[in-house]
Amino acid sequence: MLIHISRELLVKAIQHVYKAVSNNGRGSMISVINILVQNEWIFISGTGTSLAVQYKVCTSDSKVRIFNQGSITCQANYLYEISRKLVDDIVIIEVIEQRILYITSGSTQVRLNGMLHTDIPFFSQNKYQQTTNQFIVPCNLLVPMIKQVAGVASTTDAKPVFMGVCLEIQGSQLTMIATDGVVRMARCSIPIENDAGWTGISIIPATSLIDIAKMLTNDGFTDVVIELNHYEIRFMTPNLLIKSAVIEGLYPSTRNLVPHIHVSEVVLDNISFRQLLDRVSVLAGYHLVTMQISEGRLTLLSNTAEIGGISDELDLKEQSGENFSITINGKFLISTLRCVNEDYIRIRFTGSRSPILLLPVREERDWLFLLTPVLTKSS
Amino acid sequence: MLIHISRELLVKAIQHVYKAVSNNGRGSMISVINILVQNEWIFISGTGTSLAVQYKVCTSDSKVRIFNQGSITCQANYLYEISRKLVDDIVIIEVIEQRILYITSGSTQVRLNGMLHTDIPFFSQNKYQQTTNQFIVPCNLLVPMIKQVAGVASTTDAKPVFMGVCLEIQGSQLTMIATDGVVRMARCSIPIENDAGWTGISIIPATSLIDIAKMLTNDGFTDVVIELNHYEIRFMTPNLLIKSAVIEGLYPSTRNLVPHIHVSEVVLDNISFRQLLDRVSVLAGYHLVTMQISEGRLTLLSNTAEIGGISDELDLKEQSGENFSITINGKFLISTLRCVNEDYIRIRFTGSRSPILLLPVREERDWLFLLTPVLTKSS
Repeated sequence: MLIHISRELLVKAIQHVYKAVSNNGRGSMISVINILVQNEWIFISGTGTSLAVQYKVCTSDSKVRIFNQGSITCQANYLYEISRKLVDDIVIIEVIEQRILYITSGSTQVRLNGMLHTDIPFFSQNKYQQTTNQFIVPCNLLVPMIKQVAGVASTTDAKPVFMGVCLEIQGSQLTMIATDGVVRMARCSIPIENDAGWTGISIIPATSLIDIAKMLTNDGFTDVVIELNHYEIRFMTPNLLIKSAVIEGLYPSTRNLVPHIHVSEVVLDNISFRQLLDRVSVLAGYHLVTMQISEGRLTLLSNTAEIGGISDELDLKEQSGENFSITINGKFLISTLRCVNEDYIRIRFTGSRSPILLLPVREERDWLFLLTPVLTKSS
Repeated sequence: MLIHISRELLVKAIQHVYKAVSNNGRGSMISVINILVQNEWIFISGTGTSLAVQYKVCTSDSKVRIFNQGSITCQANYLYEISRKLVDDIVIIEVIEQRILYITSGSTQVRLNGMLHTDIPFFSQNKYQQTTNQFIVPCNLLVPMIKQVAGVASTTDAKPVFMGVCLEIQGSQLTMIATDGVVRMARCSIPIENDAGWTGISIIPATSLIDIAKMLTNDGFTDVVIELNHYEIRFMTPNLLIKSAVIEGLYPSTRNLVPHIHVSEVVLDNISFRQLLDRVSVLAGYHLVTMQISEGRLTLLSNTAEIGGISDELDLKEQSGENFSITINGKFLISTLRCVNEDYIRIRFTGSRSPILLLPVREERDWLFLLTPVLTKSS
């Protein structure tokens, strides 16, 4: 193998792939990155516990020249650290003896021992077949949707499907649903660019989906092609191919969780509300916070017998229905408000022992966040 | 107690004090901050494991008004978090019932339970007496000196004096010395503003000194008054009083450690050298790096049998004496180069089994860093 590649492009490719493999730190497998030069393409790939990522570069890109084909697999962290620290614009990557990678850039000369990789499940170029279950969504809608929904999924493996995010494709709409199975549920829908004309469902590990959102954010492409089958899901941009395992199982219906009638409804400023919540939650370790709605004002209260208490208030933008008071887990609400990209949000109160609902104010947005109250002595 | 204080001033004072007390996390003591309003002064104080800090504000400052005197002690972390999250410019601090602190700022109302503080060793206003062992140094010389020297001190308590930094006052010169007792020694001298006219010596815990440097950096004052006695050292600016315990014991003489003759001497660019070292050390986990000086060039090499090797080179600015090769611990050298505020540095080679010396190029600077080589098979 012998290639010349621009440092910038090499660093970008390795960083993308490293995001997936570095999660292996959680397990015991050694993280590796494979570089494969085949025909007119350079494929840089890595496999994590539930993610596989491949970044491809074509010789039509002026920043790369291929002289000799070949393949090598190296420990991911060394390749990542070295690539970041190179200073010259051009990097020469060469495999002369078997399993030894030489990197030359300016005055820097690196010799990195490769590894046998027969047992590492990389992307197979030959076996890759397109399925018909394919659709296209814009990155600038997909990434915020993932951020808003995926954080709600459960982090304990008591019920594995709840550690995943449920993707539903229904014709021209993609919906993501996540719940921790106890207190929170989030749902969000976005339009599909090419009407899929089919329905499908898949459960993706929430942690993988969060990593994928990060990779797509940095990739700079506007559209992403998503492909589904029973065993895996693929996200594709012109340079990037990300493959994730899916969680087997049946995702329970969440439609019945959402109350259809409400007692009160208020509209308030998203950022002011979040800052207020953050301030009031300080003493209670971000747990119990009481929301009181009364005559156009929201008062937040938090009290602990040992430490003390805080109260603060905010004018509502709109209020309809009766005054109410409810105690919720402030931490769960803050983490969702952080990911909601809206100026104003709508909160529906459905009863003192029923969940509150957060909804968008703008009609073109389609999302929902449900939070079950904490039952206190007074409720 | 009843005072009005600007949020900005309150946050600044609490942040300064919090730096000292937050180190208590290492121990089991609860970190507390005391607010004392006495005559025309507000004293905000905290005590850590080996540091005590007091920030004082006078009513002559237009940003504060005192209505009632008093004192209260609260848990440091809550006071710190609350003060950071207030939004209104004016903060009202009030103690009505005994041991309950009320903070009001805009619409925010906080009630914070205080604590008994009879057994917490705060600054006693009455017992404080000026000693004659006092001198003045500029902050912009003192802070870099601490950063350059204190990191070299030992982190294990096998020999307690080596966990400290030795301060020597000799007339018009302040010298700091630190060593880990094995591989490294750092020394730095700066002029004293008012010729002290006396000699003195004191050993300050290196971790305390590093915290002090951080506090002085943010304080914004140009000069710091330092006061020494057998039990403690005080650093004073108009608003800040920092007290540190001293380490009892005799600091061994380090004069004999420094070789007086050298075989070779080179001058090189500080930043380029550090970046080169950083790059070459990547594979070896920042440990063994070989420096080769030959015909006006420095080559750095690092090799491990399992992972691979890196080499890179740099043109020297000057070279006198013979070519040489020496293997050192790259991590120790990088951490010192990061703290040395010089464009160029001088390296003296004193023999293949003797330490290398780092020195300033500019004559007005007075510092030294000594690093013992790692003995390899070839040396």
